Amino acid sequence: MDHKDSVSIRVFSLNCWGVRYLSKHCSQRYAMIGDMLLQEEHDVVLLQEVWSEKDYLFLRKKLASSHVHAHYFKSGVIGSGLAIFSKHRIQDTLLYRYSLNGYPYMAHHGDWFGGKAVGLAILNIGTLTANFYLTHLHAEYCRERDAYLPHRVVQAWELQQFIRHTSAGADVVVLGGDLNMHPQDLGNRLLTSYTELRDAYAETDNFDGCEDGLTLILDNPFISQKVIAPFEKGIRIDYILFKGSCKADIQCVSMRTTKGSIPGQAFPYSDHEALTAEFTLAPSEAGGDFRSSNRDCAPGDVARLVDILTEARTEVKVGVHCAERMRYTAARTAAMGLALLLLELAIAAVPWLTLGAEQAFPLTTFYLLVALCLAILLCTSLLYVFYTMELKSLQGTEDQMRLSVGGLQEKLRALPLSRPTEGVKPGNMFCDEE
Amino acid sequence: MDHKDSVSIRVFSLNCWGVRYLSKHCSQRYAMIGDMLLQEEHDVVLLQEVWSEKDYLFLRKKLASSHVHAHYFKSGVIGSGLAIFSKHRIQDTLLYRYSLNGYPYMAHHGDWFGGKAVGLAILNIGTLTANFYLTHLHAEYCRERDAYLPHRVVQAWELQQFIRHTSAGADVVVLGGDLNMHPQDLGNRLLTSYTELRDAYAETDNFDGCEDGLTLILDNPFISQKVIAPFEKGIRIDYILFKGSCKADIQCVSMRTTKGSIPGQAFPYSDHEALTAEFTLAPSEAGGDFRSSNRDCAPGDVARLVDILTEARTEVKVGVHCAERMRYTAARTAAMGLALLLLELAIAAVPWLTLGAEQAFPLTTFYLLVALCLAILLCTSLLYVFYTMELKSLQGTEDQMRLSVGGLQEKLRALPLSRPTEGVKPGNMFCDEE
Repeated sequence: MDHKDSVSIRVFSLNCWGVRYLSKHCSQRYAMIGDMLLQEEHDVVLLQEVWSEKDYLFLRKKLASSHVHAHYFKSGVIGSGLAIFSKHRIQDTLLYRYSLNGYPYMAHHGDWFGGKAVGLAILNIGTLTANFYLTHLHAEYCRERDAYLPHRVVQAWELQQFIRHTSAGADVVVLGGDLNMHPQDLGNRLLTSYTELRDAYAETDNFDGCEDGLTLILDNPFISQKVIAPFEKGIRIDYILFKGSCKADIQCVSMRTTKGSIPGQAFPYSDHEALTAEFTLAPSEAGGDFRSSNRDCAPGDVARLVDILTEARTEVKVGVHCAERMRYTAARTAAMGLALLLLELAIAAVPWLTLGAEQAFPLTTFYLLVALCLAILLCTSLLYVFYTMELKSLQGTEDQMRLSVGGLQEKLRALPLSRPTEGVKPGNMFCDEE
Repeated sequence: MDHKDSVSIRVFSLNCWGVRYLSKHCSQRYAMIGDMLLQEEHDVVLLQEVWSEKDYLFLRKKLASSHVHAHYFKSGVIGSGLAIFSKHRIQDTLLYRYSLNGYPYMAHHGDWFGGKAVGLAILNIGTLTANFYLTHLHAEYCRERDAYLPHRVVQAWELQQFIRHTSAGADVVVLGGDLNMHPQDLGNRLLTSYTELRDAYAETDNFDGCEDGLTLILDNPFISQKVIAPFEKGIRIDYILFKGSCKADIQCVSMRTTKGSIPGQAFPYSDHEALTAEFTLAPSEAGGDFRSSNRDCAPGDVARLVDILTEARTEVKVGVHCAERMRYTAARTAAMGLALLLLELAIAAVPWLTLGAEQAFPLTTFYLLVALCLAILLCTSLLYVFYTMELKSLQGTEDQMRLSVGGLQEKLRALPLSRPTEGVKPGNMFCDEE
């Protein structure tokens, strides 16, 4: 790409593992990260797991000269942990909170309290409008029996929807973050197929970093053997994805990751490896990048998308069944609690049920049981409300997926004969960036 | 507008007041609504407060021949109550849940359980892409002391953000729904100033309906005198708003509302009046509609927007203070509950504190007090978590508003001298539909 208006930008992404008092060497690591960012002067820095606003403010102060513009996305109880620092003015921001994000009672996993979301920051780089998306999906705690898979699939669905619907005005799109999904995972395929985002690691010829682009590796001293054990060398769950438009071309010139340790430092920046990608942007004359994206409107690609969607719908349906079962259990437990309460009240109200003996049902036991029943009723009611909301979100996503499959199948029927579908712009279903 | 490709569409909007078993004549009214919609054959029907999916399915079945395409937006515990019926294929949908929507413990108001949101349905009408937005904001229960005002302002802010960011690819935009805001309310000004949406009632020369376009009137038998009393004749809180783009012109040809009673029927469709607007859409040659929208980039309009934003920020700050106070109260109550619990345990563990008398601190009282303390701790913890989330949302909105004011003020400084701001496209801040 040799264009006189072309611009080169460097994008940095890191999951900072910033749980105050719990993450090891937290403040020292933030100091290291701040020094490095100040020195490297990336154009855009996308950070995840900056759980404390104090740490954000520390970085903000430190980077005041190198990255004049910054935004911290607030969400959930302690989150969203997403922060962006930029050399270019942030024109506008938007936050989309995922409708599902684990369970509040799984406090040891903590994801629910993080209020996971996707943040959008709109920047003007040269003459181009660039949409930077920054996200962090629900963690995977056990790959074999992943109870959070439906939630993560819903998050991936909402992420692709959000990107597609908000990027129509953008010349270039960059997404960075910890997706908590391996490259070939369902959610990742859903995301990249729908949005046509390209993986910086896969697209560049100039890569320097961990083998296979891994971002969670055994060489990192903060990573326990147990986490990595099932995956041989490590896993790749952090990404920088990108795409251009009919108005701009974007190419990934180089990509690098840290490799577990930092030369001259006692420990690395985080338990995740840091990603840096260098891009060249250039206004395009004849819609170069975008036209090529129309490849997906070929029958083979539409059919592949239908397959991915079908797989995703199955996973969401599993989630629906699970939520229904949990809600039923909550309702049944509430009913038992209520029955027990009524029985107790009946025993107390009707003395002859106590078999004549005064001490047969002592007051202490009575009050304790009433308190127990009320506690059961309160907790199960809250759970019932929570599961109902989970169910609505899962069903809503399934509805949207069904609508999407319907549209794709209609397109598939129309494609082989090359008949234009009445009233439907070609490629409008998922190539709607035009 | 005389264009050979022009299309005429009719849009209908109604808050159905569909609370099963609580709303009067609910099923009869749904039957009436179904009959009317089947007969009228509007192009697009936007319904709110369809709280039961059964009622949606009833309408879906009834309108199977007239409105082939439909979508029900699921959200919250019983909501979102939003349903769309269309003669044109729904290409895609997206739901954005407002981050704030009342309080779960205000169960008698019920808004929180409705999971209020804005739904987007993308339709192809002729050769044009039309974005239909459908929403229902938090109700106003007391205009003088409106505790929900900060929440509604945040909702209006999120609504304008969502519309702006998702409509860049749309040729025409239509928003219908119950905004629960009077025409000159802060949230309404925020919404229309940012999105440049025009009010169908104000724009048409051909209006037939209640005086001043009111949608909640005394003549409606379902409306109590008490609700309307402070407002003389009634209030206008339901709207159909619209705008075109550089690719299409849209004009409101006519608008009408029901007038409290329906000829030949015993009662009206709902406690709200129904809105019907007729539009003419036409592909535009020279970006007619959009160019005229650049008027807002004049210094006077930017200054006006800064004023509205400043007013909105003040309101959000009031919400922040209120949430902080509530969270502090929850924390203090929790601390008192904990202190009481520890005191009790100390008394029980250290017998000489009971002043020697065995009956001084009977077991029953002890257990009851422990149960009470635990209940206080549980409830206040939940409230603390809830208020923290509310606070994060309010602060996040305030941050975004501050960012926006900064951008506008910079634009204002640049405008009088007509200097192009470096790297910033003119009008990109809030005229970013180009």
